[in-house]
Amino acid sequence: MISISNLKRSRLSVGINPFSHAAATKLKAPVYPVSIVATGSYKPSNIVPSSEIDKKLGYNTGYTERLTGVRSRPIVLNESTVEMAAAAARHALKKVNMQANELDCIIYAGAVTYQAIPISAVFVQRALGLQFDSVPCFDVNTTCLSFLAAFDMACALMLAGRYKCILVCSADSPSLGLDWKNPEAAAIFGDGAGAAILRPSENQTGVMSILFETYSEGADACQMKALGTNLNPHNDLEKFLAGTVFEMNGSKAYEIASKKMPGFFQRLLESAQLSLGDIDLIIPHQASAYALKRMTRRLGLPADKVVDIFSTHGNQVSASLPTALDAAYSSGKITAGQTILLLGTGAGITLGGAVVRV
Amino acid sequence: MISISNLKRSRLSVGINPFSHAAATKLKAPVYPVSIVATGSYKPSNIVPSSEIDKKLGYNTGYTERLTGVRSRPIVLNESTVEMAAAAARHALKKVNMQANELDCIIYAGAVTYQAIPISAVFVQRALGLQFDSVPCFDVNTTCLSFLAAFDMACALMLAGRYKCILVCSADSPSLGLDWKNPEAAAIFGDGAGAAILRPSENQTGVMSILFETYSEGADACQMKALGTNLNPHNDLEKFLAGTVFEMNGSKAYEIASKKMPGFFQRLLESAQLSLGDIDLIIPHQASAYALKRMTRRLGLPADKVVDIFSTHGNQVSASLPTALDAAYSSGKITAGQTILLLGTGAGITLGGAVVRV
Repeated sequence: MISISNLKRSRLSVGINPFSHAAATKLKAPVYPVSIVATGSYKPSNIVPSSEIDKKLGYNTGYTERLTGVRSRPIVLNESTVEMAAAAARHALKKVNMQANELDCIIYAGAVTYQAIPISAVFVQRALGLQFDSVPCFDVNTTCLSFLAAFDMACALMLAGRYKCILVCSADSPSLGLDWKNPEAAAIFGDGAGAAILRPSENQTGVMSILFETYSEGADACQMKALGTNLNPHNDLEKFLAGTVFEMNGSKAYEIASKKMPGFFQRLLESAQLSLGDIDLIIPHQASAYALKRMTRRLGLPADKVVDIFSTHGNQVSASLPTALDAAYSSGKITAGQTILLLGTGAGITLGGAVVRV
Repeated sequence: MISISNLKRSRLSVGINPFSHAAATKLKAPVYPVSIVATGSYKPSNIVPSSEIDKKLGYNTGYTERLTGVRSRPIVLNESTVEMAAAAARHALKKVNMQANELDCIIYAGAVTYQAIPISAVFVQRALGLQFDSVPCFDVNTTCLSFLAAFDMACALMLAGRYKCILVCSADSPSLGLDWKNPEAAAIFGDGAGAAILRPSENQTGVMSILFETYSEGADACQMKALGTNLNPHNDLEKFLAGTVFEMNGSKAYEIASKKMPGFFQRLLESAQLSLGDIDLIIPHQASAYALKRMTRRLGLPADKVVDIFSTHGNQVSASLPTALDAAYSSGKITAGQTILLLGTGAGITLGGAVVRV
């Protein structure tokens, strides 16, 4: 439960009043006083090593791994995105010995929906056995940064007193829509799910700053044109089927992201009233080996503080960020009192980041 | 801009502290101090009268209208859902002489996305000429109640100080996925878009209560199984194409919705500390003539206070609620100082409602 004194502090810190008490002290109060109660993830048991892709495409052994930086990636056999999201949620619940019916809101934050109608969160609710329990369900989407956007909205809803225990879960199966004529792009993706359980915090843990920027000049740099109202399979089936494959103009996406990222990163840290030295751990969206390396160098990030699960997971789209977060918690890299930074770019082009005191 | 004193009042009213000053006074302070600055809508110019459907299906003239309660419905010719959403947004902006670049966040709240990647809000941003402007873009979805869910999240984000002027826009083209073998269900739908521009409020206008409940026991009562990860057109094309059509088990959907609605409605009013007599106007989701009639009777709503645009619009899915809201503003039915109620049920099954002092 949020105490009123905490709320006043947190409200004063949002930046509405620059002369506030909180702004004058060293330690800024959180924008969102929130606690990450538990994280979870689901990794399909079917692991496809790069050597298998080499064999299938007639490459010398080792070529795909050298090309992409991925040693192996999890690929769904029969698991649906909903089942994976529910498994990640159960993983998180189990860690803190919670029952699903303690959740009072479910936000599904995947890039590609399970089906057009109804929303995916509804199916997660049912998979968790809450089909008669009234728990409100919503889908929030910003493609690769969906988890972060849903995290933002979940925090805002809790600050407003709307909910007290929110599940945010992300899942994607990019393996269902890859263009293997372009193995350099196709081989970087992996399937999976990640989740987090959030509660209002009474202490000083929470979100110190959170920021998004979208530049639709790059709307067509990363796209999958079908599966919506844009292409109608009953009018032009061939075009529709071609549109079920992920298309990427890597150089355009990279150009926009790299041009905007340094300024964005500075604004994110400034808004938290922190400098890079104050950050204990950086959890980036696992876009690609190249993107991770360039971002680390460009922003001057200390490489030993950057969580990198890319070689064993690939780019899991919306599941990437929460899976990396869960990996960092599970391996003991995140401990209470630390300040961590979530960061990434995705289709849109959207840049997103959050500084969180855990 | 939100004043601190307003914020404290609004926080105290959320229900965390039942002994608060606000709870003791007659007029409850808003949960969300927010102002609906302007609404807009877009109605396709291609109007299909029920007589045309009669002719096409070999019915006697008048049969479809008697069956569905729809006299005519707008159906897209070439307009995309993105273009319609942008047109509704421009309509709202024009009413208050605002420029698109005054928006600092865009939330797209449609049931069926424009394409799988990137999100629809990105395309609306581009259509509004903001492609270089960094305005954050998000998609929020709860099918028919997407507008209300996005409204909730927009209000929460503004209360937290994250944004100061948010566009929420909804568009759907159900005409693209109807099963004309079942004309009773197909003929009730219309295409269109609705939008609202929201800002924090300094006076006592805003959301008095807002509530959602989801019962996934009814997940398969209203569904469109394709256009996501559930069905893969490359594995089973026939099944996929069959899944692009909206399926409805009307009696199951109605059974859950009607069982849950009276209790839901009571909780919504109680949370606002108001009774039905305090409500000046009711804006329901325009689900069907039958659903509107039954809800009106079941909840004892005064029929002259219920906004009903069904006969000329049909069920416009996510666009229904904001289009009805815009119609109520445009016709002068909503005036400053009133208390209005937004209410509906949708796929999920989800129930949603909000009491708003305008």
